[in-house]
Amino acid sequence: MSSDCIFCQIVAGDAPSAPIAETESTFAFMDIQPGSDGHLLVVPKRHSTDLRDVPAEDLSAVALESQRIAKHAFDAWGADGVNLLNCCGAEAWQTVFHFHMHVIPRYRDKDKDRLHLPFDPGVRGNPELIGTLAASMRESLGEE
Amino acid sequence: MSSDCIFCQIVAGDAPSAPIAETESTFAFMDIQPGSDGHLLVVPKRHSTDLRDVPAEDLSAVALESQRIAKHAFDAWGADGVNLLNCCGAEAWQTVFHFHMHVIPRYRDKDKDRLHLPFDPGVRGNPELIGTLAASMRESLGEE
Ligand SMILES: [Zn+2]
Ligand SMILES: [Zn+2]
Ligand SMILES: [Zn+2]
Ligand SMILES: [Zn+2]
Repeated sequence: MSSDCIFCQIVAGDAPSAPIAETESTFAFMDIQPGSDGHLLVVPKRHSTDLRDVPAEDLSAVALESQRIAKHAFDAWGADGVNLLNCCGAEAWQTVFHFHMHVIPRYRDKDKDRLHLPFDPGVRGNPELIGTLAASMRESLGEE
Repeated sequence: MSSDCIFCQIVAGDAPSAPIAETESTFAFMDIQPGSDGHLLVVPKRHSTDLRDVPAEDLSAVALESQRIAKHAFDAWGADGVNLLNCCGAEAWQTVFHFHMHVIPRYRDKDKDRLHLPFDPGVRGNPELIGTLAASMRESLGEE
C-alpha cells in the first residue's frame, strides 16, 4: 500500500467511494467521472502501478471480477453492451497509478452514454507496415 | 468452432493474418484496421461470442497473454503506453463476435497513434445517481 495512492486509500476505507463488490483480492467501486451511467472500476487490493507490474494472479482476479460485474450490468442496469478498458501509462490516459480495469456499461439511450469511438475502425492499415511490426514483435517475444 | 467466424478461421489457418504469438489456448494477430501502429488482437482459440460467455480459463489466458505482449510493445515498438479494450455487444463497438482483447500501443508521436479519448474524464458524475446505481448493482450481485 502506498499512502499517497487514492485507490489504496479507497480499498483501506480511508477515502470515500461508492463500493460495488469485494473479493479476497479485488475491490470494485463507482467511477466518479463516469463516461456512462454505471461506469465503475475494478482494482486489485494489493498496489500495482499498471499493467506492466500487476502480478498474474491479481490480473486474472480483476479480469474475472470485471466479467462477473459486466454480466450483471445487462440485468441490473439495462445495459446494451459493456466495454472493458485498461489504460497503461499516462500516454494511454492513465491518471491514477494503481492498476485498474474500467467496466463501462453502454446504452442505446445516449442520455446514459457519453462515449464516442476512440478510433475510426473503417480505416485499413498499411499491410506492409503491419507485417513489419508483426515481425519485430515476434522477434521480441521469441516466437518463430 | 463456428465455420462462418473469421477469427475461428484465422486461428485454424483457414484465413490469412499477421500472427504475433500462440499459446496453448490463445492466438494473437495484428488488427488490419489499427487505431495505432501495432494494434493487435488476442483471442481464445476456442470460440466464445463475447465477455458474457467466455470461460474463466480462456478469459484469464487472454488477459495474461495481452499483458505479456503489451510489455513487449514498449521495447519492441517504442510504445509510450498501451490500452487494453474489450467490446462486448454491438452497442459497445463489437464487430466480430468471437471474444477478443484489443491491445493498442500508444505513442506520443501522433503519426503512429490515431486514438482520441472516448469520453471526457473531466466531467463529474451526479453523486446521487452514482449512489443509486451502486445500490442496484450490489443488490444484483448479492453483496451486502
Ligand atoms: Zn494503490
Ligand atoms: Zn482510469
Ligand atoms: Zn470464432
Ligand atoms: Zn474488435
